[in-house]
Amino acid sequence: MSNLPQYVQIKEVGPRDGLQNEKTWIDTADKVAWINMLSESGVKEIEYTSFVNPKWIPALADAREVGKRIMRNPDVSYSALVPNVKGLDLALEAGIDRASVFMSASETHNLKNINKSIDDTYPIIKQVIHQAKQAGKFVTGYVSTVFDCPHEGKIAPNEVHRVCEKLFEYGVDDISLGDTIGSAVPTQVEQLLETMMTYYPKEKIIMHFHDTRGMAIANIMTSMQYGIHRFDSSIGGLGGCPYAPGASGNVATNDVLYLLHGLGIHTGIYEDKVQEASLFIQDKLGKALPSRSLAYLASAI
Amino acid sequence: MSNLPQYVQIKEVGPRDGLQNEKTWIDTADKVAWINMLSESGVKEIEYTSFVNPKWIPALADAREVGKRIMRNPDVSYSALVPNVKGLDLALEAGIDRASVFMSASETHNLKNINKSIDDTYPIIKQVIHQAKQAGKFVTGYVSTVFDCPHEGKIAPNEVHRVCEKLFEYGVDDISLGDTIGSAVPTQVEQLLETMMTYYPKEKIIMHFHDTRGMAIANIMTSMQYGIHRFDSSIGGLGGCPYAPGASGNVATNDVLYLLHGLGIHTGIYEDKVQEASLFIQDKLGKALPSRSLAYLASAI
Repeated sequence: MSNLPQYVQIKEVGPRDGLQNEKTWIDTADKVAWINMLSESGVKEIEYTSFVNPKWIPALADAREVGKRIMRNPDVSYSALVPNVKGLDLALEAGIDRASVFMSASETHNLKNINKSIDDTYPIIKQVIHQAKQAGKFVTGYVSTVFDCPHEGKIAPNEVHRVCEKLFEYGVDDISLGDTIGSAVPTQVEQLLETMMTYYPKEKIIMHFHDTRGMAIANIMTSMQYGIHRFDSSIGGLGGCPYAPGASGNVATNDVLYLLHGLGIHTGIYEDKVQEASLFIQDKLGKALPSRSLAYLASAI
Repeated sequence: MSNLPQYVQIKEVGPRDGLQNEKTWIDTADKVAWINMLSESGVKEIEYTSFVNPKWIPALADAREVGKRIMRNPDVSYSALVPNVKGLDLALEAGIDRASVFMSASETHNLKNINKSIDDTYPIIKQVIHQAKQAGKFVTGYVSTVFDCPHEGKIAPNEVHRVCEKLFEYGVDDISLGDTIGSAVPTQVEQLLETMMTYYPKEKIIMHFHDTRGMAIANIMTSMQYGIHRFDSSIGGLGGCPYAPGASGNVATNDVLYLLHGLGIHTGIYEDKVQEASLFIQDKLGKALPSRSLAYLASAI
C-alpha cells in the first residue's frame, strides 16, 4: 500500500451535518463550548453550522449566535452551509472563511431536498459562489447522492461529473462528493474516482461518506488508494439518516483517525481531544453515538 | 479491483463467538430455533456452540442439548469449539462435522485465556486434532491475537506463522486468523498475509475480524485483495469485547453480505433470512445489535 497519502486533511462536519438531523436541542452555549473544543483538537477545517432556513433545520436555528460566539483559532478554517444569497449574507455577518454550497447529482433528490430542478438550482448557486468569492471566501461545492439516490437508484459517474463541471465553472475551489445515503461499496468509489480523476486534480476532491451500512472506512481506504487525501467526517459518528431514524450518520472522525493513525498517516489531530469532545456532545444528546472506537474507549475496562 | 474473488465462503459464528460474551441467557429452545433459521439462510458453515467448560462460558452451558436438537441441513457444515479431548468427546456425541481448536499467537494471551503456556498447549491440541481426524472430522485451528495482544502489544507475523506451522503439522485442515481485539488496520492485514501466503495456499486461510474500532470491513476488503475468500462473521455483529463491555464484537454477517453482494461477489446466502434471524436474536437479547446494515433496515421508513 505504498500509494497511501502521507497526510490527510479532515473537515469536521459534526456541528453541521451531524447535529442537523438530531431532534434534541443543544443549547447555544453548549454548541459554542463544543465547537471551541473541536477548534483545539488540531483539526484544520470545521463546518460549524448551516444557514438554511431554521424551518427546515430547527436544530441549527441559532446559527448566527453560534457564529458570533465561537472562538476563532487562526489555524482553523470555519465554514457554514449556505443555500442562497440570503443565507450567505447571514453567514458572512456571523463569520466564515469558507461557504459550502450544495446540490444533488440526482434530479429527484435535488427536487425533494431543494425543491427545485437541477437546472433551476444552478443560477442560485452561481450567484452564491460569485458573491462569496467577491467577499474573498473559499467555496466548497457539496454534491450529494453521487453513488445512489434513494429515489432514482444508481447514479452514473457522468451525471456527477456534469454537476461538478458547472460548479467548477462557477468558481468553487473544491468539490465534496457525498455518499448521502451511505450505500456505496468500494467498487463504486473506484468507478466514480476513475472518472473524476481524469478531469480534476486530486487536491480538488473531498470524499464525504456516511456509515449507514458500515462501508465508510473501506470506502475511505479505497479513496486513499486513488490518491484522495481530503475527507469529511463527524465527531462520534454524530448525525442520523433521514430515511432510517435509528441508523448511523456520517463516518465518525474517531474511527477515521483510528484508521489513519494506524496506517501511519498524519492528520495533526489529537485523538484524546476528539474523544473529549465526543463524550461532551454524547452527554448533551443523552445517547451513545455510533462511533465504534468511541464505544470501545468509553467502555474499556 | 479485478483481483477480488468471485465467491466468498462465510462461517456464521454468532451462536458461538457471538453468544459466548452475552450476559443474557438464551433459552435452549430459542437457540435451536435460531440456529435452524441460520441453517436455512444459505450459509454453508455454522459454529453452533462451544464445549468449553460452562464455568467459563455459562451462556453456552446447554451445548450438548443444542447439538442434539438442532436441525441438520446436509448442505451445512456444523462446527463447535473444543478445548480438549473431553470437550471433543462431548462434541462428537452432540454431533459435529468440524472441530475448532484454539490457541493464541501471544504467549500472555494464551496464558490468560487457556491458563497454559503456548508450549504446554501444543500437546493438548495435538491430541484433540488427532482424535477428531480419527473420528473423520474436519478441524479448524483458530489462532487468536494475530495482530495485537491486549497484554503484549504488536504480534509479529513470524510468531503467528510459528503457531500455524504446529497446527498444520498436527493435521488441521485450515487456520482461522483472529483479530481478537478488533484493533488491526489494513496495513497490518497486508503484512500478515504477505507472510502467510508465502507458506500456505489461500484456501487454507480464514480471516476472523472483530469490528471493535470499525475497521473490519476495510480489513476484509484488504484480505480479499490478497485472494482470501473465507471469513468468519457473526449475525447482527453479535458478541461483545471482554475488554470493553459496551464495544462491538465480531464483524456483522449482515454488513459483510452488504459489502460482498454490492461488489458482485457470490455467497449463496439470502440477506432476508439473515435479517430475520438477526431480528429474532435481537428480540431475545432485548437490545439493538451493532450491525450498521441491520440498524438501517430495522429503522428504514
